[in-house]
Amino acid sequence: MEQIFSKLEFLTNGEGFIDITNDLKLFIEENNFHSGILNLTSLHTSCSLTINENADPNVLRDLKKYMQSIVPHNSYLTLSKNREEISYKHYQEGADDMPAHIKTSLTNTSLSLSFQEGRIMLGTWQAVYLWEHRIDRKKRIINVHIIGEKNAKYI
Amino acid sequence: MEQIFSKLEFLTNGEGFIDITNDLKLFIEENNFHSGILNLTSLHTSCSLTINENADPNVLRDLKKYMQSIVPHNSYLTLSKNREEISYKHYQEGADDMPAHIKTSLTNTSLSLSFQEGRIMLGTWQAVYLWEHRIDRKKRIINVHIIGEKNAKYI
Amino acid sequence: MEQIFSKLEFLTNGEGFIDITNDLKLFIEENNFHSGILNLTSLHTSCSLTINENADPNVLRDLKKYMQSIVPHNSYLTLSKNREEISYKHYQEGADDMPAHIKTSLTNTSLSLSFQEGRIMLGTWQAVYLWEHRIDRKKRIINVHIIGEKNAKYI
Repeated sequence: MEQIFSKLEFLTNGEGFIDITNDLKLFIEENNFHSGILNLTSLHTSCSLTINENADPNVLRDLKKYMQSIVPHNSYLTLSKNREEISYKHYQEGADDMPAHIKTSLTNTSLSLSFQEGRIMLGTWQAVYLWEHRIDRKKRIINVHIIGEKNAKYI
Repeated sequence: MEQIFSKLEFLTNGEGFIDITNDLKLFIEENNFHSGILNLTSLHTSCSLTINENADPNVLRDLKKYMQSIVPHNSYLTLSKNREEISYKHYQEGADDMPAHIKTSLTNTSLSLSFQEGRIMLGTWQAVYLWEHRIDRKKRIINVHIIGEKNAKYI
Repeated sequence: MEQIFSKLEFLTNGEGFIDITNDLKLFIEENNFHSGILNLTSLHTSCSLTINENADPNVLRDLKKYMQSIVPHNSYLTLSKNREEISYKHYQEGADDMPAHIKTSLTNTSLSLSFQEGRIMLGTWQAVYLWEHRIDRKKRIINVHIIGEKNAKYI
C-alpha cells in the first residue's frame, strides 16, 4: 500500500459546477495506481465538492437555483411561524460571501472516493463536481490524496 | 494492509430509511477483516447515505417530513423577502425526481466508517441508513470497499 | 502502513462551535504519524463535524443563526405554496432535540482528513469544528482513526 499527495487547480466562472471527474481519473492513471481510496479536500470555505447527475443540465441548474433560494443574499426569512427576517452579520466580503459559507456547510468540503482497476466507483449518471458558490472568478485548489496499490509493473 | 471491493443491493419501498448497519457488519465479518476503513458509495443521485438515531422511529418520520417540507414537489417558495415561487425545470422523470436530487446533495452520497475488531465505530444510538428519496420501489446498489487488516489467522 | 484508534472527549457549552483542529494535530504528533488519512466519527446524532472559516467569528454566528432559522424548535413552516405548519412528533427529549437530529443530517457525522508530514491538509482559513446542536452542556466523544505511515525513526 502506497500514498501520494498532490493539488489540482481549477478556475471557476461564477456560481455553478465544474465536472472534475476526468481530472481525478487522470491523476489516478498518471500515478499508476490500481485500487484504493482517493480522498479529496477543498481548501476553501466558499465552494463545495458534490456528487450529482451528469445527464440533464437542468438538474444542475435546479440545484443551483434551489440553493440560491434557500440561502439568499443579504437577508432571509426564517421557517418559524413569525417569518422573521434575518440579516447576515458577516457581509464585508460581499453579499454572496456568507451565503457561500452556508452553502458549503450544507454540502461537502471533502469526499472519499473508492477506485478499482483505475476506475472511480461511481454510477452511470454520477459525476464529481466542484461547486462554486461565489459570483466572482476564483482559483480553487483541491487537495488530492491516494492510499492504495499501484499497478503490478510499478511495484 | 489489504483491500476488498464489493456491492450490496437493496430493494427500497418508497421514500424512507433502510437500516444497513447489520449488512455492513456481515460484510466485514465474512471477509475476515479486523480493523480498517469501510468506504461506502451510493451509485445513485436520488438516494443518500446517512447516520442517524436508531431508537425512536419518530426521529426518522420527522427527518423525512422535514426534508419533504423544505424540498417540495413541483415548486417551492424562496426564503427571500418576496417569497417567490420557483418551479423545477427538470420534471420529466416525475415530480419526486428533482427534489430527490436536491435531498441527495443536502445529505451524503458516500460515507467513510472506521471499524476496529470487527465493530463499526458508532455510538449506541446510531445506525447507518440508506435514505430513499424516490416514491417508487427501486433497486439500489451501494459500493463497499475496505482498506484494513485481516484477522490474524487469515493473514 | 499502520493504524491507530482512539477517542477524543469534548465538553460543549450549548449550541455552537468548538475548534478541534489543534486536538487533531496533537493526536497525529503524539502517535508519530507522518502521512495518512485521519477518519473522524462523531458518536452522537445531535452534534456534527464541519469544516468552515476560522477568521471572522461572525461567520460562525451567522451559520448557527441560519441553521436555527431553517430548523426551528417545536414546529416549522413548509416551503410549499400553502406554507403549512408542521410539528415534530419526537419532542419528548426537549424542544431542541429533533431540530438537532435534523441539523446533524444536513451537515456531517464523519469526516476524512488527509495529512502529510504531520500537517492536516486544510486551507489557511479553514478549521475543523465540533458543532453542538443541543442547548445543554454535553460530553461529546469523537472517534479518531489513522491509517498511514509513521515517522522514519518510529518504524
